[in-house]
Amino acid sequence: MIETLPSPYYAVIFTSVRTATGAEEYERASQRMLELVQAQPGFLGVKSVRGEDGLGITVSCWTDQAAILAWKNHPEHQEIRERGRRIWYRSYHIRITRVERSYSA
Amino acid sequence: MIETLPSPYYAVIFTSVRTATGAEEYERASQRMLELVQAQPGFLGVKSVRGEDGLGITVSCWTDQAAILAWKNHPEHQEIRERGRRIWYRSYHIRITRVERSYSA
Repeated sequence: MIETLPSPYYAVIFTSVRTATGAEEYERASQRMLELVQAQPGFLGVKSVRGEDGLGITVSCWTDQAAILAWKNHPEHQEIRERGRRIWYRSYHIRITRVERSYSA
Repeated sequence: MIETLPSPYYAVIFTSVRTATGAEEYERASQRMLELVQAQPGFLGVKSVRGEDGLGITVSCWTDQAAILAWKNHPEHQEIRERGRRIWYRSYHIRITRVERSYSA
């Protein structure tokens, strides 16, 4: 992820808890979503971590809210999200945020 | 973390890459910081994940930017952060964000 983006831009924080189900299909779907999202207009980057306890946090960065909405409405993303809700995630939470400032070391 | 907070509130996204150094001391310091942060005024909650590759994402939620600044300036937090920079983190990035909206399932 480009760490020196000029603010303001937008970050979507996706926290989720995995079920124990469907690991292989989930991996394939994750890879496919990563390919797709990288081709979306306004996409700036993504970082994702999942711990051994099943908790995961994914942060994706976007130029603006319209770009986030377009990705939300992408047909293949919608279909995969529906499977996520039914099969892969025990629970999840999405926060749409505006990055006010950032710094790094 | 309370998942039904009314927007707007603030989220701090801390991404970091660990060195291979100082695991025990790091764990103690993490526990201590968790105790301290939970007592801070304006603190709403925190979630943290670290993957096997050393990448970690921590998201903490706050009522306002003044509360975030007060935590940044907390003397014990400053001291630990300095150790983090020198010993525990290969790199890190901090984003101060305003949560515009959120939803969950």
